Amino acid sequence: MTQQPDHAFPHRHLLGIEGLSPLDISLILDLADSYVDQSRRIDKKSELMKGLTVINLFFENSTRTRTSFEAAAKRLDADVINMSVSSSSIKKGETLIDTAMTLNAMHPDVLVVRHANSGAVQLLSEKVDGAVINAGDGRHEHPTQALLDALTIRRRRGTIGGLTVAICGDIAHSRVARSNIQLLQIMGARVRLIAPPTLLPSKPERFGVEVFTDMREGLQDVDIVMMLRLQLERMQGAFVPSVREYFHFFGLDRQKLSYAKPDALVMHPGPMNRGVEIDSELADDIDRSLIRQQVEMGVAVRMACLDVLTRPLREGAAQ
Amino acid sequence: MTQQPDHAFPHRHLLGIEGLSPLDISLILDLADSYVDQSRRIDKKSELMKGLTVINLFFENSTRTRTSFEAAAKRLDADVINMSVSSSSIKKGETLIDTAMTLNAMHPDVLVVRHANSGAVQLLSEKVDGAVINAGDGRHEHPTQALLDALTIRRRRGTIGGLTVAICGDIAHSRVARSNIQLLQIMGARVRLIAPPTLLPSKPERFGVEVFTDMREGLQDVDIVMMLRLQLERMQGAFVPSVREYFHFFGLDRQKLSYAKPDALVMHPGPMNRGVEIDSELADDIDRSLIRQQVEMGVAVRMACLDVLTRPLREGAAQ
Amino acid sequence: MTQQPDHAFPHRHLLGIEGLSPLDISLILDLADSYVDQSRRIDKKSELMKGLTVINLFFENSTRTRTSFEAAAKRLDADVINMSVSSSSIKKGETLIDTAMTLNAMHPDVLVVRHANSGAVQLLSEKVDGAVINAGDGRHEHPTQALLDALTIRRRRGTIGGLTVAICGDIAHSRVARSNIQLLQIMGARVRLIAPPTLLPSKPERFGVEVFTDMREGLQDVDIVMMLRLQLERMQGAFVPSVREYFHFFGLDRQKLSYAKPDALVMHPGPMNRGVEIDSELADDIDRSLIRQQVEMGVAVRMACLDVLTRPLREGAAQ
Repeated sequence: MTQQPDHAFPHRHLLGIEGLSPLDISLILDLADSYVDQSRRIDKKSELMKGLTVINLFFENSTRTRTSFEAAAKRLDADVINMSVSSSSIKKGETLIDTAMTLNAMHPDVLVVRHANSGAVQLLSEKVDGAVINAGDGRHEHPTQALLDALTIRRRRGTIGGLTVAICGDIAHSRVARSNIQLLQIMGARVRLIAPPTLLPSKPERFGVEVFTDMREGLQDVDIVMMLRLQLERMQGAFVPSVREYFHFFGLDRQKLSYAKPDALVMHPGPMNRGVEIDSELADDIDRSLIRQQVEMGVAVRMACLDVLTRPLREGAAQ
Repeated sequence: MTQQPDHAFPHRHLLGIEGLSPLDISLILDLADSYVDQSRRIDKKSELMKGLTVINLFFENSTRTRTSFEAAAKRLDADVINMSVSSSSIKKGETLIDTAMTLNAMHPDVLVVRHANSGAVQLLSEKVDGAVINAGDGRHEHPTQALLDALTIRRRRGTIGGLTVAICGDIAHSRVARSNIQLLQIMGARVRLIAPPTLLPSKPERFGVEVFTDMREGLQDVDIVMMLRLQLERMQGAFVPSVREYFHFFGLDRQKLSYAKPDALVMHPGPMNRGVEIDSELADDIDRSLIRQQVEMGVAVRMACLDVLTRPLREGAAQ
Repeated sequence: MTQQPDHAFPHRHLLGIEGLSPLDISLILDLADSYVDQSRRIDKKSELMKGLTVINLFFENSTRTRTSFEAAAKRLDADVINMSVSSSSIKKGETLIDTAMTLNAMHPDVLVVRHANSGAVQLLSEKVDGAVINAGDGRHEHPTQALLDALTIRRRRGTIGGLTVAICGDIAHSRVARSNIQLLQIMGARVRLIAPPTLLPSKPERFGVEVFTDMREGLQDVDIVMMLRLQLERMQGAFVPSVREYFHFFGLDRQKLSYAKPDALVMHPGPMNRGVEIDSELADDIDRSLIRQQVEMGVAVRMACLDVLTRPLREGAAQ
């Protein structure tokens, strides 16, 4: 079932893409490839994590991400416990640590954590004995999303190195963008950001990327167009008069896509606002859109992450 | 553990009773009989669905039905993932399809779906690769409820054909009634509807049933009395002055039951409004009431449905 | 994996500490000791409850306690189903019984129940065939908390008999206090209650304890100081002007702890209000505070309770 890779994953937690080497990332993507096959079988289950405990600790709601991690852990035969902690019942800081200590005393082997505050997952990881996977913290990182995006690209294009990838839309608020910018660069891709000035992070040059505020210019010669979800509730502000106008300037449709390479591919982390950041029909075009593949890769990448992080434990126990 | 029935279930999904043949229904009921025995053992588990994934996708809350499906799937050793999607976070139509596509990419073998809109489950079934079971959609169908009702009757009476069954109460809003009317007729029972005119569906004759607005008349010579839950929040309208008056005219008590056959049996899909649509003491009379058996049959019928729908998959994998 | 103890647990349910003998309690604590070891392994799982069904039925929210029971049951390989029933959807009394009957028809082997009303769990236990574990009912009992506290003490001190234990704080509203008072006395400890008069139960002498309203007096010569969580929402009343004043008089800090024996240990059932009933730094002092151990013992004690209550079932099935 599981391969014996040459490279051992050198990190105890997966808190972000930052700090990962190309070998670390390739290790996860190679493993994930085999888990794609496992998830397509009728019997999707292997016994890799039999007897181990995974706790999904979600301080923010995310049915989609939680479900993906739950499916991944169950297919490796782990015991999975879901904990939804409403932010209202949490008085942050100190209490987050108490929650961590409480869970730690139950000896989870992996804690999958989502939290509204950047850095909360790292803080928690310092207090527990098991491995921690960041399932999204504030505007900071969402590493498994970047890894599944990378797997999706690699399976379609064979490689990531040398590609030009445009990340478009609400970059300022996006942990997905932050993780992808880093991963793509580590793996040798060129990254461009395209957004209205109000949705760009401050000093975007610090990321070593090219920055555009015009889709036509920015999409020139691009291999991959990654659209981001627009937080519609933030649209009420001053920067654009309307959703319709946003779509006119920054929503991806066939017209704008034609500025990119002829075989450029479209991605979106979901859930989509159809007709806002992306044209509905283009999103469903199986020749140009990788959106469905991204979700499938999600389970496989999370299986691979659970695998590499618990390998030292399992190998220790087997000796 | 599992029988090898002669008749193969010819449907990919279970979206409703409509379209099922007597053989289809008997196949499920026969299998369910064996699962009743399995659920009464100490070790309630068989490995039929080991390695398969069942997602319970509930757009409406229903702890009771979700729990019944969850127990059924776990007793067949499937991996079960619960997803509660609050209707507020769903903007219907298009987004339902995106949810379906997202889940589909996780390769569930079975999706159990409840939705507030009639037809939503069918729409979703057209977009996914796995089998879909309708766990209740709007006022349309709730097929596993009708199947468990049928199993309950068949185990007590030996057969369904030839019986006269009265369905009483809030028929207009009831998917349970709609599924039961069809199943009972397919299996050769005569069906009567008894309700105040305001709680009857429009043109009830189209269902091929007899219609009554008086319990005394309607219950004459009836073998089975199926009471429906009254949606109390809908009682605030004009059609009845009060719950007490409703009970007086349409609530089932021993007096009204005496109009039916001497050995007539009482059913209710639950949860009951005791003292509204049914007398509390009568509901608990183990000689006349089948209400407890109905719940027990629920788990067994759902195990049988999971079995027949995944049989082609499992047999394909075994070859 | 599991020991064969000489003493058979003579109760069908675990509704409270009341009625347990020293042998009953020791049986659970001895078994729990072995489950502490099991939970510290990489493979935390044994097959003791394979094929059995545990339903966690929580009428009150409690992520912490539910998670602990869920981990315990899964480590014994039971099928676990979580049911959160919001109190708003329950119209008490009759409906509680209907819920019980509904669940009973699913043949759960164990029902773990939390309810806001004292006595509700016992009422429910009279209607079902499986074993019921009280996970906290109103102000009545929370027996697994008292058992995990006892295991924590016994592992650190070797014995419970002969110790002097002070229970401090909001005793009037505390089921934890009620269960601990009984267990500690059954096992031969001396119990003191320390609280402001408004937070003492009426006629506290009936419990056979010493009562103090001053921490300095009450902590004299004490071996164990059990702090209780202060329900902050109840603080809005008349009895204390402020949280700060409460901490001044009844919050445990090093100064007050110095009145107890030099090696006195501190406990708290969690979640803590740091700086209200307990000094934050003292809570984290691993030499004096047993708070982290209490959580770890929780899973082990719940595994032991599940074990003793299902033993008759499993032994019957094996014959």
